[in-house]
Amino acid sequence: MLTLGEIAERTGSELIGDPEQQVAGVCTLQNGRPDCIAFLANPRYRKYLADTHAGAVFVTRELAEQCPVAALVNDNPYLAYARAAALLAPPRALEPGVHPSAVVAEDAVVDPSAQIAAQAVVESGADIGPGVLVGPGCVVGRDVRIGADTRLVANVTLCEGVRLGVRCLLHPGVVVGSDGFGIARDGARWVKVPQLGGVRIGDDVEIGANTTIDRGALEDTVIESGVKLDNQIQIAHNVQIGENTAIAGCAGISGSARIGRNCMIAGGVGVVGHLEIADGVVVTGMSMVTRSIPEPGVYSSGLPAQPNEQWNRITARLRRLDDMARRLRELERRLEQGEDAD
Amino acid sequence: MLTLGEIAERTGSELIGDPEQQVAGVCTLQNGRPDCIAFLANPRYRKYLADTHAGAVFVTRELAEQCPVAALVNDNPYLAYARAAALLAPPRALEPGVHPSAVVAEDAVVDPSAQIAAQAVVESGADIGPGVLVGPGCVVGRDVRIGADTRLVANVTLCEGVRLGVRCLLHPGVVVGSDGFGIARDGARWVKVPQLGGVRIGDDVEIGANTTIDRGALEDTVIESGVKLDNQIQIAHNVQIGENTAIAGCAGISGSARIGRNCMIAGGVGVVGHLEIADGVVVTGMSMVTRSIPEPGVYSSGLPAQPNEQWNRITARLRRLDDMARRLRELERRLEQGEDAD
Amino acid sequence: MLTLGEIAERTGSELIGDPEQQVAGVCTLQNGRPDCIAFLANPRYRKYLADTHAGAVFVTRELAEQCPVAALVNDNPYLAYARAAALLAPPRALEPGVHPSAVVAEDAVVDPSAQIAAQAVVESGADIGPGVLVGPGCVVGRDVRIGADTRLVANVTLCEGVRLGVRCLLHPGVVVGSDGFGIARDGARWVKVPQLGGVRIGDDVEIGANTTIDRGALEDTVIESGVKLDNQIQIAHNVQIGENTAIAGCAGISGSARIGRNCMIAGGVGVVGHLEIADGVVVTGMSMVTRSIPEPGVYSSGLPAQPNEQWNRITARLRRLDDMARRLRELERRLEQGEDAD
Repeated sequence: MLTLGEIAERTGSELIGDPEQQVAGVCTLQNGRPDCIAFLANPRYRKYLADTHAGAVFVTRELAEQCPVAALVNDNPYLAYARAAALLAPPRALEPGVHPSAVVAEDAVVDPSAQIAAQAVVESGADIGPGVLVGPGCVVGRDVRIGADTRLVANVTLCEGVRLGVRCLLHPGVVVGSDGFGIARDGARWVKVPQLGGVRIGDDVEIGANTTIDRGALEDTVIESGVKLDNQIQIAHNVQIGENTAIAGCAGISGSARIGRNCMIAGGVGVVGHLEIADGVVVTGMSMVTRSIPEPGVYSSGLPAQPNEQWNRITARLRRLDDMARRLRELERRLEQGEDAD
Repeated sequence: MLTLGEIAERTGSELIGDPEQQVAGVCTLQNGRPDCIAFLANPRYRKYLADTHAGAVFVTRELAEQCPVAALVNDNPYLAYARAAALLAPPRALEPGVHPSAVVAEDAVVDPSAQIAAQAVVESGADIGPGVLVGPGCVVGRDVRIGADTRLVANVTLCEGVRLGVRCLLHPGVVVGSDGFGIARDGARWVKVPQLGGVRIGDDVEIGANTTIDRGALEDTVIESGVKLDNQIQIAHNVQIGENTAIAGCAGISGSARIGRNCMIAGGVGVVGHLEIADGVVVTGMSMVTRSIPEPGVYSSGLPAQPNEQWNRITARLRRLDDMARRLRELERRLEQGEDAD
Repeated sequence: MLTLGEIAERTGSELIGDPEQQVAGVCTLQNGRPDCIAFLANPRYRKYLADTHAGAVFVTRELAEQCPVAALVNDNPYLAYARAAALLAPPRALEPGVHPSAVVAEDAVVDPSAQIAAQAVVESGADIGPGVLVGPGCVVGRDVRIGADTRLVANVTLCEGVRLGVRCLLHPGVVVGSDGFGIARDGARWVKVPQLGGVRIGDDVEIGANTTIDRGALEDTVIESGVKLDNQIQIAHNVQIGENTAIAGCAGISGSARIGRNCMIAGGVGVVGHLEIADGVVVTGMSMVTRSIPEPGVYSSGLPAQPNEQWNRITARLRRLDDMARRLRELERRLEQGEDAD
C-alpha cells in the first residue's frame, strides 16, 4: 500500500487529488478498480477515461481536466505508470541459498545473497554475484560470470565463459553462448569451425523467452547495456548490438552484423551478416536488411496482407514487371517518333 | 488388436470386408502392412491405392470400389483414420506418483493419479489435476493450475499463475507466462514495465515445441479451447486467440492482437499488435497482417521464390515502380492531347 | 602447443617460415598475437594482412608474398584454419560416468566411456554409445539410440525412439521427436492425428540452439549425414533433408518436404509442405519456396529494405499494379489503332 502522494513524488508527477488516498496496485482504464491506478498513453484508449473506475490515472496535462478521478499529471504517463507498477508490485524477493537439489561445483563462487533454485546446475569456475537468481532447471556453464541482481527465470542455459552484467533479466528457454554457425567447405562435406570466442552482455539487458545468442568465432559477441530483446530472437556469432537498442520477437541477426545504439528492430526482421546499422535506425516488421544503413531513419520491406485474389493478381503481374517496363519504353519510343514525324 | 468390425463401428465407417479381420496398427498406403489400416485423403496419393499392401483403407465412397483390400468408407477418411490411430496406438499410460528426484513444494496440490517425472519442479501453491503428466525437467511455477489429463511432455516451463485447462498437450521447450515485451522510454534508456497479468489456456489446446506465450501486462493473455499451435510460435502479451483456431510453425502474434475463432494462420505469418481478426479468417504463408480483418476470407502477402536472376530484375523494377507509374500517366496525357488535337 | 611444421603437415599446407615456431592458438588478423595463427579467406579482410601481429597466417598462394609473417599456403585457407583450430583448441574431454544427480533408467544401456551430466534424465530402453555426452539437464526419452561421440550440450530433449548417428552435436534447447502438427477437421473442432513415426538423424549432423525437429506421422523424419542446421529452425514431420545440406537460422521446413543434398537454405526461408527440392539448390534469405524446384540454381523472393517513405510509395503502386497493366495495354491498343488509322 502506498498513498497517492507518495506515488506522485516517486514518479515525478503532479497530483490533482487527495495525497492520502491509498493505492494497492495498478489496473487498466477499462477494468479500473478504486484502489488501483491506471494510465492513459495510447490515444485509442482515451474513450475509456470518462467512465473509468480506477482510483487515479496517470495522464498528460492536456487530459487532466477530463479525468473523472484523481489525476497524476506527467509528460510521459506510460513511464510514470511503469515506475509506479514497479513500486506497487515489486518482483518476488529471493530466498538466498542453494536448494538441496541443485548441483553447484565445489570451486564455483556463489554469493551468499544469491539464490540457486531447484534442479539448477552451476559448473566449475562460475562466479555468481550478490542478489542473483539462478532459477529452477537453469544450467550455468564453466567460468560463467553473472553480475549482481541478474535473474535467470528458469530453464536458461549459459554456456562456458559467458559474461552477464548487473540487473539483467533472462526469461525461460534463453540460450547464451551456443556455438556460432561456422562451417568450412571440404569438397561436398562441411567441416566445423571451432567457435572459440565468448559472449559479453552489459547491464540492464532483458532477453525474452527462447531467444538464442551465439558465442563468437574468435572474438566475442557483444550485447551492450540497456539492450532489450523480445522472445524467439536469433543473434548469430560476433554480432554487436549497441546500447539501448530494442529488438522485437522472431527477428534474426546474422553473423558479424553491427547494430548501433538506440535502434528499434521490429518483429520478424532479418539482418544479413557483415554489415553495419547506424545509431537510431528503425526497421519495420518483417523487413530484410541486406546492406549497411549509414543514416538514422525508418527502413522497410515488409508487405501488408491483402485479400488473396487481389494478391495473386499482383504477384502474377510482378512476374511480368520486366515485360511491362519494356513495353512502356517501347510506347514512349513510338510516341516520340510519332511526334517527331508530325 | 482390434477387429475391422470394431474399428468401423467406433469410427462411424461402413465396412466393405470381413468384420473379424484383426488390425494391429496403422500404416501408409505406400508402405502398407497386412495387419494395418491406411487412409486415402489427399488425391496425390490415389496412385498408391491399387497396389497397397495395407489390410484395409479408409476411403470415401467414390473410391471404395477401387480399393483392392477391405474398405472403411467414410466421408472424412482422415478424421476416421485419426480416430482409429488413437484407438490402436493410445498414448503411453502414466506412472502415477512423484519421482524421487522431482522437487514438489509442500503446499502444492498433486492429484494422486498425476505423474511428476524425474527432475521436475512444482513450486508453492501449484495445483496439479488428475491424470496430469509433468514430464522430466518441467518447471511448474507458483500458483499454476493444470486441469485434468493435461500433459507437459518434457522441459516445459509454466511461469507463476498460469492456468491450463483439461486435456492440453504441451511439447518440449514450451514456455508459458514469460514476461511480455513491455518497455517505456526514459530519454535514451528503456524502463521495464512490470508484466502483472496472467495466461489462461482453455481445454484441448496443443502447443508445439519451443513455442512461447507471454503473460499479459495487466489483463490476461487468453488462448481459448481447441486452439492448436505448432512449433516455434511467439504469442505476445494480451493476445486473445478464439476457439479452434490453428496456427502453423514460426508465426508471430504481436501484443494485444485479437484473433477470432476457426481461423487458420499459416507458417511464418506475422500479425501486428492491437488489431482484430474476424472468425474464419485464413492467412497464407509468410504474410504480414498490418490491419484489422473484419471479414472472413483468405489473405496473403507472401511472395513465391523464383530463379534469382529473374527475381533480381523484378526487385530492380520494383524500385522504379513509382517512376513507371509517372511515365505511364504522362503517356496517357500525351495521347489524350494528341487525340484532342486530331 | 604445436609447431608451425606440425600444423602445416596436418592441414596439408605449405609453410613459408620457421617449422620450429611454437603456436598456442588461433586469432583474427586484426587482433593478432605472436603465438597464434590467423587466416585470410574473405577479401574484405585483406587490408589487415600487412599489419597483422599474428605469428602466422593461412593464405592462398597469390597472397603469400604479401604476408609479413610466416605463411601457411593453402587453396582453402578457411578449411585449413578450421582444422588447425580443432587441433589447437579441441573440445573439452569428457568425464566418463553418470553424475550422482542424473536419473538413468535401470534398463538403459550407457557405455562406460559416456558422460551423463548433472540433472540429466535417461529413460527406459535408451542406448547411449561410447564417448557420448548427455549434458546437464538433457532428457533422453525411451528407446532413444545415440551413436558414438555424439554430444548433447545441455537442456536438449530427445523424445521417444529418436535415433542419432555418430559425432553429432546438438546445442542447448534442441528438441527432436516432438509430435508433428497433425490435426483433422471434425466440424469446427480439430482432432489430433497421433504422430507415430520417428526421427532418424545420420552422422556428423550439427543442430543449433532451440531448433526443433518433429517426428513423422507414420514414417520417419530423416536428416541425412553431414547436414548442418543453425539455431531456431523448425523441421516439420516427415521432412527429408539430404546429405551435407546446410540451413541457416530461423528457417522453417513444412511437413513432407524433401530437400536434396548439398543445398544451402539461407536464414528465415520458408519451405511449403509436400514438395521436392533438387540437389544443389541455393535459396536466399527470407524467400518462400512454394513449388518443387527440380533444377539446381539460386532461388529468391526476399525483398531488401529501403527508406520507409520510398517503400510506402512502392507498396501503394503495387496495389494498383493490375490497374497499371490494364492502362498499359489500353495505350498499346490505342496507339496501334492510331497507327492503323494513319
